[in-house]
Amino acid sequence: MVDRIRRTLGGGIQGDRLRDDAAVLAVPGGGSVVVSTDSVVAGVHVDLALCAPADVGWKALMGALSDLAAMGARPLGALVALCVPGSDGSGELALGVMAGVAEAVGVSGCPVVGGDVSSAPELVVTVTVLGSVDGGVPVARAGARAGDVVLLTGPCGSSAAGLRVLRAGESGGGVSPSADLVGAYRRPVARLAEGEVLRQAGAHAMIDISDGLALDLHRLADASGVGFALHDVPVAEGATRAEALGGGEDYELLVAIGAEDAVRGSEALVARGLRAPRPIGVISADRDERRLAGMPLARLGWQHALG
Amino acid sequence: MVDRIRRTLGGGIQGDRLRDDAAVLAVPGGGSVVVSTDSVVAGVHVDLALCAPADVGWKALMGALSDLAAMGARPLGALVALCVPGSDGSGELALGVMAGVAEAVGVSGCPVVGGDVSSAPELVVTVTVLGSVDGGVPVARAGARAGDVVLLTGPCGSSAAGLRVLRAGESGGGVSPSADLVGAYRRPVARLAEGEVLRQAGAHAMIDISDGLALDLHRLADASGVGFALHDVPVAEGATRAEALGGGEDYELLVAIGAEDAVRGSEALVARGLRAPRPIGVISADRDERRLAGMPLARLGWQHALG
Repeated sequence: MVDRIRRTLGGGIQGDRLRDDAAVLAVPGGGSVVVSTDSVVAGVHVDLALCAPADVGWKALMGALSDLAAMGARPLGALVALCVPGSDGSGELALGVMAGVAEAVGVSGCPVVGGDVSSAPELVVTVTVLGSVDGGVPVARAGARAGDVVLLTGPCGSSAAGLRVLRAGESGGGVSPSADLVGAYRRPVARLAEGEVLRQAGAHAMIDISDGLALDLHRLADASGVGFALHDVPVAEGATRAEALGGGEDYELLVAIGAEDAVRGSEALVARGLRAPRPIGVISADRDERRLAGMPLARLGWQHALG
Repeated sequence: MVDRIRRTLGGGIQGDRLRDDAAVLAVPGGGSVVVSTDSVVAGVHVDLALCAPADVGWKALMGALSDLAAMGARPLGALVALCVPGSDGSGELALGVMAGVAEAVGVSGCPVVGGDVSSAPELVVTVTVLGSVDGGVPVARAGARAGDVVLLTGPCGSSAAGLRVLRAGESGGGVSPSADLVGAYRRPVARLAEGEVLRQAGAHAMIDISDGLALDLHRLADASGVGFALHDVPVAEGATRAEALGGGEDYELLVAIGAEDAVRGSEALVARGLRAPRPIGVISADRDERRLAGMPLARLGWQHALG
């Protein structure tokens, strides 16, 4: 669908910018902005029986911010377009969503600078974020080179496992491992600092794994015209291997970077009190090589309905 | 609702930026961007029985661009978040909407730089636009001064009249006045050049009249802490006076500007082949004076469901 939309737009689209997590726009007078927009639709991306309105607001802002993280950009501001059902409770629903947005603003440091409120048959939260690479070059999906190390900023699968726990009706309260998983599902955190540090360390390509590690790694390889051989996939505690590979809604970053820069980047992250990324494999020149532990890796993950 | 959302966001919102048509964001490395986001929801803002999908796409982009026009900004790019029903025809619906976006891109010169496609129960098109004032100062709603002339860039009511014609089932074909009205409803044009020229001429305050002239003029006066006395409201051919005052979805600009600058701005517009704006009244220091032809002017217009 995105390809057909691209053809429909013809000359009205700039460059190849619909391919990346975010677009880059030069600003008259100096500088540039990195921009991305994302919708969260109740009943499609989230189930209001399993998430509070505040969780939806949090997830909408963090999901958009994750696209900036994947470019190595620092957030400047967000716009929130809220469509809420016109029922009696819609005012409370809107305020609940915005309370979660406000919490995510507090954690991310990205202020809300504008927005729009409409009524609609179902809750839709569309967040547009603007960011900056402060004179640097944003990191695209294309750019991975043969010999690059593949880094992952953290273990995967906790969000999908949290959703499984919620669907099974298990308690998400207390301090059980389940509570951590449910928290990962309801309150994911965009890896903004990690993206910025790894961009500065010289990352060649980055992508967030919001649609699932396996699928998003294939996309990075497709865009870069390369293959990969993974030796390992770190699975979050309480998650299954399938959830780690194809669960999606994890906001860890997948990074292709030269071996020395990988070490430098890891040290810089640790120096800032952040988790050291895990080397999980290497990029190969053979674009048909797509392996995990020697076996072909399927394109597992969330395929957009119209994608 | 916007006030309650503002309170919910607390310190997470920058300045008073939810008040204006668009927000202004400083960009590291120099310039600034003017940004705005707007949703068009089928069944709320548009009726798909009266508009083709391409009309919806056109209206969504032009509606967002009108917010840039009202700040005197030149468009740099747009992001389109499309939510389409997941039925069999959704692919065609999405492509139809984007065909109209592409036509509006051609007329406005604003390229699409990014987007998102999701499924949803109903068609929602959220467009975010970025613009620039090229080192100048964006024109806010607040800023009108006693003695300013009130200019209007064109006659009003044609969009509401077009909707009336469509609802009555009259033919919109051919070259009848009805066809012009229907065209004004389906294919409104943001006054981008007018906004930029009037900003450069020294406009003190601007607003688009997308929610209706009367309501938006009150908003401009509220924001500026002033009153107004209108002597005249130009009614589009085929429209009623009520449609001109409160119909909404007209994208003409309402401008408060010093008398000499008004003349200079009008001349500059005519020199560029654009319509001379009409002086329709004056700004007064008494914020309780809100008159049209000597009578109090009611707040007529489209009040957002949650506004």
